Amino acid sequence: MIGTEMLLGEIIDTNAARIAQRLASIGIHVYFKTTVGDNWTRMAAALSQALTRADVVITSGGLGPTQDDLTREVVAAVLGVPLVEDAEALAHVEGWFRRANREMSPSNRKQALVPQGARIIPNPRGTAPGIIARRGQQAVICLPGVPHELSTMMDETVIPYLKEHFLPNGSLHSRVLKFYGIGESALAERLSELLGMENPTVATYAGRAEVRVRITARTADGVQAEDLLAPVEAEVLRRAGEFLYGYDQDTLELVAGRALKAAGWTVGLAESCTGGMIAARLTNVPGSSEYFLGSVVAYSNDAKMELLGVPADLLAVHGAVSAPVAEAMAEGAKRRLGASLGVSVTGIAGPGGGTPEKPVGLVFIGLARDGGTEVHRLQLGGDRDRIRWHTTQAALDLIRRHAQQAAAARQGQA
Amino acid sequence: MIGTEMLLGEIIDTNAARIAQRLASIGIHVYFKTTVGDNWTRMAAALSQALTRADVVITSGGLGPTQDDLTREVVAAVLGVPLVEDAEALAHVEGWFRRANREMSPSNRKQALVPQGARIIPNPRGTAPGIIARRGQQAVICLPGVPHELSTMMDETVIPYLKEHFLPNGSLHSRVLKFYGIGESALAERLSELLGMENPTVATYAGRAEVRVRITARTADGVQAEDLLAPVEAEVLRRAGEFLYGYDQDTLELVAGRALKAAGWTVGLAESCTGGMIAARLTNVPGSSEYFLGSVVAYSNDAKMELLGVPADLLAVHGAVSAPVAEAMAEGAKRRLGASLGVSVTGIAGPGGGTPEKPVGLVFIGLARDGGTEVHRLQLGGDRDRIRWHTTQAALDLIRRHAQQAAAARQGQA
Repeated sequence: MIGTEMLLGEIIDTNAARIAQRLASIGIHVYFKTTVGDNWTRMAAALSQALTRADVVITSGGLGPTQDDLTREVVAAVLGVPLVEDAEALAHVEGWFRRANREMSPSNRKQALVPQGARIIPNPRGTAPGIIARRGQQAVICLPGVPHELSTMMDETVIPYLKEHFLPNGSLHSRVLKFYGIGESALAERLSELLGMENPTVATYAGRAEVRVRITARTADGVQAEDLLAPVEAEVLRRAGEFLYGYDQDTLELVAGRALKAAGWTVGLAESCTGGMIAARLTNVPGSSEYFLGSVVAYSNDAKMELLGVPADLLAVHGAVSAPVAEAMAEGAKRRLGASLGVSVTGIAGPGGGTPEKPVGLVFIGLARDGGTEVHRLQLGGDRDRIRWHTTQAALDLIRRHAQQAAAARQGQA
Repeated sequence: MIGTEMLLGEIIDTNAARIAQRLASIGIHVYFKTTVGDNWTRMAAALSQALTRADVVITSGGLGPTQDDLTREVVAAVLGVPLVEDAEALAHVEGWFRRANREMSPSNRKQALVPQGARIIPNPRGTAPGIIARRGQQAVICLPGVPHELSTMMDETVIPYLKEHFLPNGSLHSRVLKFYGIGESALAERLSELLGMENPTVATYAGRAEVRVRITARTADGVQAEDLLAPVEAEVLRRAGEFLYGYDQDTLELVAGRALKAAGWTVGLAESCTGGMIAARLTNVPGSSEYFLGSVVAYSNDAKMELLGVPADLLAVHGAVSAPVAEAMAEGAKRRLGASLGVSVTGIAGPGGGTPEKPVGLVFIGLARDGGTEVHRLQLGGDRDRIRWHTTQAALDLIRRHAQQAAAARQGQA
């Protein structure tokens, strides 16, 4: 990983996770990750050292047109070959500017340089082609730092290339189980005997208001990973299955969306302290317009009355953060949006606004369906960010549970 | 940085950025960052190597109560001292459970172990105290992996400790300028002569639908950083100031919020393709209830008619993604929420839903104020995530510009 951003702490290096995740999917381990600034000497030292211990070194960043972008130069120098203009790479860069209907600036010509003997990695989503440079049995793979370009190039070129040239005989298979509603210590306690196993290994990870359990099996040729994973997974579920919400890439918005679809339900929201975050998460999922109708983000009391029909006296008597108001908001969202399920949240995210009776972190979640309305009361810890995020987790998990129940009932009738 | 999460690509390692940012603020550079799994041998190798090249090694993660949490053991082994139970650390752990009104599980007692001779770092927000272990002039500092715990401990203990014991005589001072509405290549072109400077250095970084310029000055004793930074900053602004929206920790929601407050304005939103993200960003800012009234996330056409009063024939004739509908949505948000400024977005975020006339990435942003309504048309590139995010950037930048104008006019009158 190359990029001054990381070093000075300004930009979060998510590319390492992106790369490692894709490599893990084909059973290749990442043992080391080094972040260096846009500095020739330190980049060269880091690359040389990486080549002493790894078969494949992947870099991200430093392929742009500016003077800071040094990856090409450093790779060529460390491999001891000259940097040459590559006709295919030049065609790629020129083609990108032509398609984008933009003029190519002189500095972009630099993006067509590659270490002699290297092949390029097409970049369908940006100007900078990537590079695969070999040294004997080793490969240095250079990718741009822009996340969506890097992801596409990993999927389309790098993973197939590595599978063909580097895939070891034994490989690693893992499955992640995701839990909401139980803390990491409590879950680890329930799974304690499993955490000492050698193959598969079982490990717990604290996420953002959720906990993950990773089961990882190492297989030799001819052994089915599933034969190792399935019994351990069953044991994990026997011990803590009531908190499981999904697997691997699942998120609560994805699982809640699937459940709403299976139930044939639509959902409408009324958000106060989460300020639109639950709607934003639900609509993160492509195709969510099938079940998501809308959200009324009612921050002011006027908006709660005008858009959701919350009675003024309810607000006056109980305050905006109260069970009766959560109930009225959920019912208002259901009615105004014409939804099967109306969901509301109202709470005190802080840092200000808390009182001894209603401290920061107090949150009410209302769920209105044809059969009636229920309200849940939570007392959450942490700062504003954490309280808001945890509230979205709690609300999405409740939507999931209600919709899954309805979907099961629907299936029972069919 | 220690944590299997990072290696297997499941969890984004944001702690490195957190730590590096705080160190940069006092002029300490981070030269290397290594991520290793929860594996004794690799952790010990990484720590030993780090001690060959750095004065201070900071680890995050591995201080929990589970069998995977090996940081304490590894640090003691590498420093060649036994692990002992620390009375202060034990009091800390026990106190945390008492205050949280939870029972301490036997495994948590492990969290009171420290390498002999080390001092602990109080953790006001969680169970695991941190550790500062010295070896001669060097220090190994161990922090937990939970971001908000780590941040607090960096601020309250680690930074003051490092200032006292390690701060070099010369130090690094930097300032980040943030731009929206110009691409990285175009900005780098405008700043090209500045990018070759040695002190201060100037570098551009592509962010998520924004570009940052970092100006970094290295000062010896007695030199004022400001004397080096100010003239270079003025030159950057002379070349590209029209795109500047803020500095350092500024975000568009923060700057837009400040401008709304200065203008004495309130804002109400009508969001379609962004599904609540603009509201979520605005309400990320503590105190936003002063100027943010609410958002109608109107995903369905019914919601656009019912909650925003968009005429049915407008939707039928022009379609939901059109300038007239954006105009009606903005005016509806202004009216229904009683806001000084009504802002709407409607667009096609994809991956589905595009047509030759209205391709994926087409977005309309409407702004309604007392003087009239304007609509902006954007054609954005990238995937669903990128289109949605870029739309929030564009809308927040327009809110900022309108509100800053109003604030300036208000000040002129006063």
